[in-house]
Formats: sequence, structure tokens, C-alpha cells
Amino acid sequence: MRERYEELKARLATIHDLRRAQELLFWDQTVMMPPKGGPVRGAQLTTIDRIAHDLFVSDEIGRLLDDLAPYEESLDYDSDGTRRDWEKSRRVPSELASEMVGAAAEAHDVWAQARAESNFALFLPHLERAVELKRRYIDCFDGYDEPYDALLDDYEPGMKTAEVRAVFEELKRELVPLIKDVGSVEGDDAFMAGPWPTDAQHAFSLQVIERFGFDPRSFRLDVTVHPFAASSATQDIRLTTRYSPDDITSLFTAMHECGHGLYEHGVSPTLERTPLCHGVSSALHESQSRLWENLVGRSRPFWNHFYPSFQAAFPEALADVDQERWYRAINRVKPSYIRVDADEATYNLHIILRFELEQEIFGGSLDLRDLPELWNARFEEYLGIPVPNDTVGVLQDVHWSGGGFGYFPTYSLGNIISVQIWERAVADLPDLHDQFEAGEFQELHRWLRTNLYSLGRKFTPQETLERVVGGPIDARPYVRYLREKLTALAPA
Amino acid sequence: MRERYEELKARLATIHDLRRAQELLFWDQTVMMPPKGGPVRGAQLTTIDRIAHDLFVSDEIGRLLDDLAPYEESLDYDSDGTRRDWEKSRRVPSELASEMVGAAAEAHDVWAQARAESNFALFLPHLERAVELKRRYIDCFDGYDEPYDALLDDYEPGMKTAEVRAVFEELKRELVPLIKDVGSVEGDDAFMAGPWPTDAQHAFSLQVIERFGFDPRSFRLDVTVHPFAASSATQDIRLTTRYSPDDITSLFTAMHECGHGLYEHGVSPTLERTPLCHGVSSALHESQSRLWENLVGRSRPFWNHFYPSFQAAFPEALADVDQERWYRAINRVKPSYIRVDADEATYNLHIILRFELEQEIFGGSLDLRDLPELWNARFEEYLGIPVPNDTVGVLQDVHWSGGGFGYFPTYSLGNIISVQIWERAVADLPDLHDQFEAGEFQELHRWLRTNLYSLGRKFTPQETLERVVGGPIDARPYVRYLREKLTALAPA
Repeated sequence: MRERYEELKARLATIHDLRRAQELLFWDQTVMMPPKGGPVRGAQLTTIDRIAHDLFVSDEIGRLLDDLAPYEESLDYDSDGTRRDWEKSRRVPSELASEMVGAAAEAHDVWAQARAESNFALFLPHLERAVELKRRYIDCFDGYDEPYDALLDDYEPGMKTAEVRAVFEELKRELVPLIKDVGSVEGDDAFMAGPWPTDAQHAFSLQVIERFGFDPRSFRLDVTVHPFAASSATQDIRLTTRYSPDDITSLFTAMHECGHGLYEHGVSPTLERTPLCHGVSSALHESQSRLWENLVGRSRPFWNHFYPSFQAAFPEALADVDQERWYRAINRVKPSYIRVDADEATYNLHIILRFELEQEIFGGSLDLRDLPELWNARFEEYLGIPVPNDTVGVLQDVHWSGGGFGYFPTYSLGNIISVQIWERAVADLPDLHDQFEAGEFQELHRWLRTNLYSLGRKFTPQETLERVVGGPIDARPYVRYLREKLTALAPA
Repeated sequence: MRERYEELKARLATIHDLRRAQELLFWDQTVMMPPKGGPVRGAQLTTIDRIAHDLFVSDEIGRLLDDLAPYEESLDYDSDGTRRDWEKSRRVPSELASEMVGAAAEAHDVWAQARAESNFALFLPHLERAVELKRRYIDCFDGYDEPYDALLDDYEPGMKTAEVRAVFEELKRELVPLIKDVGSVEGDDAFMAGPWPTDAQHAFSLQVIERFGFDPRSFRLDVTVHPFAASSATQDIRLTTRYSPDDITSLFTAMHECGHGLYEHGVSPTLERTPLCHGVSSALHESQSRLWENLVGRSRPFWNHFYPSFQAAFPEALADVDQERWYRAINRVKPSYIRVDADEATYNLHIILRFELEQEIFGGSLDLRDLPELWNARFEEYLGIPVPNDTVGVLQDVHWSGGGFGYFPTYSLGNIISVQIWERAVADLPDLHDQFEAGEFQELHRWLRTNLYSLGRKFTPQETLERVVGGPIDARPYVRYLREKLTALAPA
């Protein structure tokens, strides 16, 4: 039994090594590679993906998983999730998988052109194809309550559409009037245009995330066009960001990506080179990027500590700006068109809109030709501003061109979970406020590591959340948090 | 037949993709990776190496190679080299291959400590093991004239020890007295200690290699501890260098690594993602790094163009140094202990010493315990200076700790070949001198690309050389070149 267990672990380690190599090659492609290296790199990535896939879906892995299920229960290892991944992977014919990859590659450039030209008709055939392929993908599975469950499950294993719908209904019910009431508080934010010298942005970002737990022996921070976090091992975390002299977003980007990185870095070393060596789901991951970016990085105690040195680092922009004005500017709630630029509160309405449309697409009631109209109508209903064109409307996101349906909701689920976890941490560590004011974040980091990060994918996302916060996903703490914060910022 | 041919190409492309990914992961490990990522990266590299090896030595590849041999002759493709690689790879049991990798990893740190302490006895057991394993490796093959042939063949396929011996004998016979005669011409080179601001070194290096053909759309230049060139595709070339403010070696390092890079970059795009997409051998590769570094980069016409701007870029070091003094300093021939710091001429004696010792080790006549004594005696005989300790003597190189026997000779073979190719290029392009004085190097680059680089591994190294220079390896042009250059620099 022990021998077969070692055999399983060795096979899974091989696959994990390939997946990590793939991630590193992708990071390199985006951050380091000379531009003309693209086509061959694409082929290399496809090759590694194919080999990893073929090794994983083999009959032998299935047999080992079956045989070892009882034995494993006596060990500090759990491969229920792996068995689930294996079953899902086997159900998708490789022709369909290749067709999806090919369609996504073709659609990407068309989407980019359509977005630039606000030309939905140009993109429509590719969107239709992406949806058609995704329907065939859904058809590979049974046992789901509704078709969208199959999509959601890829990012949030075990999560049901009905559950998300309930949580988002509550969020929407609270958030739409709240934003109408207390959003759009005006203020003089002209100073936010900078100048923000990019060297100082980099230095300050690094200084902040080093306090959070970024350790140069295990982390890098580099520049790219669309920031993300990647990793090739728990001790090899690659954060990326971008700098622009008329924008200080980079500071929050660095904290956001650092949150993702700390999660991957904190997975227990005993899980290294196993399929469990990852954050457990997209929403749990996003809860950590949001926690560090928003709950820590936009908080008063954080700025009580950092504002003096921050102001000194950017004298041209901030000489006449006091801390309160800065705090209000970075917490300003104001409806806008572009999701990725949205503030902490309105962001969720962007997500709910997309989640609803995706459900209607895969529920079958929506004709894709009507998508722009529906988008615009509902956007105005939720956010109170009319959409001037499809460039800043239905065409703004890359996700659908690549068939990435089911991903959007995890962003807001992450927001919701971030506050559930935060409340729990604050209950356990009552002097966090004072620690932040002293520029100390290690205790929060340690708490998150012990209670969440170290678990990796050992339990399901639902079990993981249950362990950390003692219950299922719940929008109320997040709504309460937003209500308190926004109300405090509104004029008396 | 066509279908089986496509099958073979697809399998070889997969293996090539894995090898390139391995090379990129190694580059990343050395240049980019946070230090604590090392252990897992090691495992990832081992995994990819194992998968690529297993895919390559499969029976099916052998069958395809056999079946397709007649068919291929009608195509613009040649897999004789691939068949040869396949046969060699199959002969080495994977246990032996693993044991060699493990022994090398263990020996590395011991060697580093032994070198630091000048403690040969500490290193001796590991050297004995490395030699023993290499003997077993040699025993995997038959058909060689002498054992050392098997080692040489890994780096210089088809080259015979007897051939190298003959070429090196001639080189040694000419070089030892020449260096005694005209070497060690003294000069006031104190200015070479700098200061050389490292930013200016980087800028000047880039400026020079961009003239050679370094194109940022397809190349990178980064900093590392032990410079090398790597590539993940013909359009993705990674050069590395290092900077020190008291040393201007980086300029020659950049030209050297650029030569390697131009070779890989110039392989015909039709060979991309095939096993032929590489420089053909270590010696041919080294001929190109040396050609750009020495024959171009240490030449008078080169400096006639660059010296004024070079002097302006380093005013503190060079304000009082005229071009002739600079030229003499960078072409100074002076025996020294460390191979990697040796000048263009004495370098070869370092190599010949190692080649002779390696042959004696594998010829069986040498007791490894006597190695330091033998090293020191022969070093003094060839270079005229006594070796003070093993740190700068027999322990200076990393190669033997990793079992890298047979590699050293390719460095000097590269020097020899560089002048054979150079003479041919000069014959075809009679105004190269004027072009260099005008700062133009594209025509030389184009010539090398057409006549050498584009061929990749399509022919054997011997056939390749024959095509480029019209004959086999020949030390005489190199000896003539060194004699003329050194004599001209000697006092009248």
C-alpha cells in the first residue's frame, strides 16, 4: 500500500512540476520574454499543457486514487479534490479542449479590435462560438442542478449557482440604494493626477509589501501590462505591477498581488510538489488580495502609520494634501464604467451584472445579439449612469473572448469572504489596530497563514471557509462593513 | 510515409519544446529566481529532463527514424544526427544517468569548499567517484578508438581524440616558445583598475552588441554571477553578463555571449522546434563567441571606430589613455593562473594542460592522488610560472566536479576554428576593415548567418566546417594570426 501511495505521489509530483513550469513560462512570456519569442513560446506552453493533461487523465492514476482512498485516511494527505479533478478532466474530450484553446486564441485579437472600435457585431460570431463550445463543455458533465454550475465549479469547486444568486441578491438589494444614497460624495481629488514619480512608487510599494511579508529571498516584484501573481513554488512567488506617473494605483495593485502571493507562499511546505499546493479556489484567493488591498491598505490605521512617509515620498502631489483628504480620495465611491478601475463598493455591481448576463446566456433565454442593449439597460439601472459605447460597456473585459464564463462571480465572492475572514481575525487579534498604527502586520500574516494559507487545497473551499470563519459564505458582514465605512464618509 | 514523417516531427517537436523549457527554467533559476526557490526548481528541472529523455529513447522514435531514413533524403531535413543521439541515449542506463546527476550535485559544494581551502584531499573522493562513473559511462559504448573519444563525442560529435591531439601538439609546439619570446611585454596598465561605472558599462556593451545584431525584439541582456548565453527559441535569446566597477571585462563578455546568441538566433526558421535547431557543436559555438569577442572586439579597426566614444563614456579611467595604450592593454599576453582570466594566447595552454591530464586519467596511467603535482609541474613547463596553491591550480574549475570531462578541448578548438572562419569571411568580404571603422558589422553578421548559423545541426560538425571553410580543422591559421599579432605588439 505504502509503495502504491509513493507511486501516486510521484506521478502527481511530476504533473505538478509540469504545471508549475507552465506557470513560470507564462510569467516569463508576460514579464521577461522578448516580443518575437511569442509564437514558439505558445507552442511550448501547449506542449507542456498536453503532456501534463495526458499524464493526469491516465487510467493508472484513476486506479491508484481508487485503491488508495481508504489508506489515505490514515495519513496527513487527502486526495478527494484530486479524484474530483481527475474525473472532471476525463470527461472533456481532448478535441473539445483543443478547439476551445484554438477558438480563444483566434477570438482574442478580434475582441481587442472590436473593443477599440466599439464594434460588437465584429466580435459577435466569436462570442457565439465561445458560448457554443462552452455549452458542449457543460454537456460533458451531469449531476449539476443547472448548466451554470458546471462553469462556476471550475473556479469555485462545489459552489452552486443558486448559492451565489442568493448571496448576490442580498448584496444587490443592499448595495444599489446604499450607493445611490452615500456614493458619489464629491471631493477635490484633482491631486490624484500626480505627478507620481515611478521610482518612488516602486520603492514605496516594496516598502509596504515587505511589511506584509514579501521576502526578497522568496518573492519578486516586476512590471507588466496586466498585473497578476504567479508562482513556481511556495518559495518562489512572482508578483507583477505597473507604474504610470499620473496614477498611484500601483500601490494598491502591489498590496493586492501581494495578498495572492502570501497565500501561495503560506501553503504548508509538506504539500510542496503535490496537487494540494495551491490556494483552494478563486474566491478564497481573491479574498486575500482584497483583504490586504482594502481592509488593510485602505484603512485608517494603515495610513496613520504610513501617511507621513508617503507624503514625504511624493511631495509634488501631496504637499498640500492632508491625511484625511487622501483617505477620502482612496475610499471614494463613485459609479464608473470600467470594472477594473471601479472602487471597492461599486465593483460588486459590475460583477453582479456580468453574473446575471452569464446565467441568462447559459440558461438559454438570451439572444447574444441583444447583449449590448441588455448590458446598457441594466448597467444604468444598477449604477445610475448611461453607457456611452460598447468599448466601455459590454466589450471591456477579455474574459468572454477566451471562454472564461463563470469566473467573474469569484471576484465579488472574494470581497464577501474577505470581510468574514477579517472579522474573525480581528476577534482573535484585538490589537490589530494598534499594530497597524505601529507599521506591524506580521501577526495578521501569521494568523492568516495558520488558519488559511497553510491548508492549501487540503479541504474543499466550503470546508476551508467553515474552518476559518465557522460557517458558510455570508454577505452580511461585507454589507455591514461597506455601510459603516460609506456612511462615515458621507457628509453629516 | 508523409504521415509517419509528420508523426516523427511532432514527437521530436514535443521533446524539443521540453528541452527549451528546461533551458529557460535554468536561465530563470540563474538570473531571476528568488534564492529560496532552488530546491523545487531542481526537482522541476529533473522532472522535465526525465520526461524528455523517456520520450526520446522510446522504441517508437527508433522505428520512425529507421523507416523514414530513405524518405527523408528527398526532403529538406536530415535526421542522421538525431538517430545518432537516439542510439547514444539508449545506451546509457537511466540508473547510471541518475547516479551521475546525484554525484555531481553532491560534489559541487565539496569542490567549492576544497577550492576555497586549497584542500585537494577533501575533493579527491568525489573526483574519484566522478571518474569511476565516467568510466562506466564510457563502457556503455563501443566502436571508439580510445576511451576519451566517447567523452569528446558528447560535445564535439564525431571528433576523435587523435585529431585533437595532433592539432593541440602543433598549437603547443608553436605557442610555448612564442609566448616565452613575445609574451609578457610589460606596459603601464594601471588604468585598467578603473573606475568603470557599471551603468556606463551596460550602456556601452548594449550599444556595441546592437551593432553586431542584438535586437531587443529577440534578445535580452541580464546580469548573473557566471555569464552564459541561453535561448528558448531562435527569436528568444538570453545573454548574461556581469559588471564590476574595477573591471571592464564585461564589454568582452557581452561580445562573447552575443556571438553565442547570434549563432542560435541565426539558425534557419525552418528548423525551429526540431532537434536541428541549435548550433552544431561546442567548438563551432565557441568559434563564434571568440570571433566576435577577439577577432572583431580586440581588433584595431573596431577600436578605430569605438575608442573616442568609449573614452568619453569612461572619462575617469581613460582621460589620459590614448587608443594605442588601450589597444595594447586589452591584447596583453601574460601568463597567469586562472583560465577564465587568461589572455587570448595563453588561454590555449591552460586548455592543452587539462586535455592532456584528462586523457591520462581515462587512459588509465594516472593516479588521481598525483594530479596536483602533475598539474603544477606541467603548468610551469608550459606557462613559465610556478603554481602557488591548488586554489589557483588544479581546483580552479568547476567542470570535473560535475563529471564534465571532454569539454575543455572545445574551448581551444573554438579559437582555432574562429580564425579559419575569419580568414574565409575576410576573403569574401575584402572591405571588412573599412566597415568596422565605420561601425558597421551587418555584412559580417549576414555572411556568418548565411554560411554557418542558418545550417543549425543539419550537418555534422565536420561537414559544417568543411562547408564553411572548405577543409578540416587546421591550427595553422590560428597560430599565424597569433604570431603576427603578438610580434607586432612586441618591442621592435
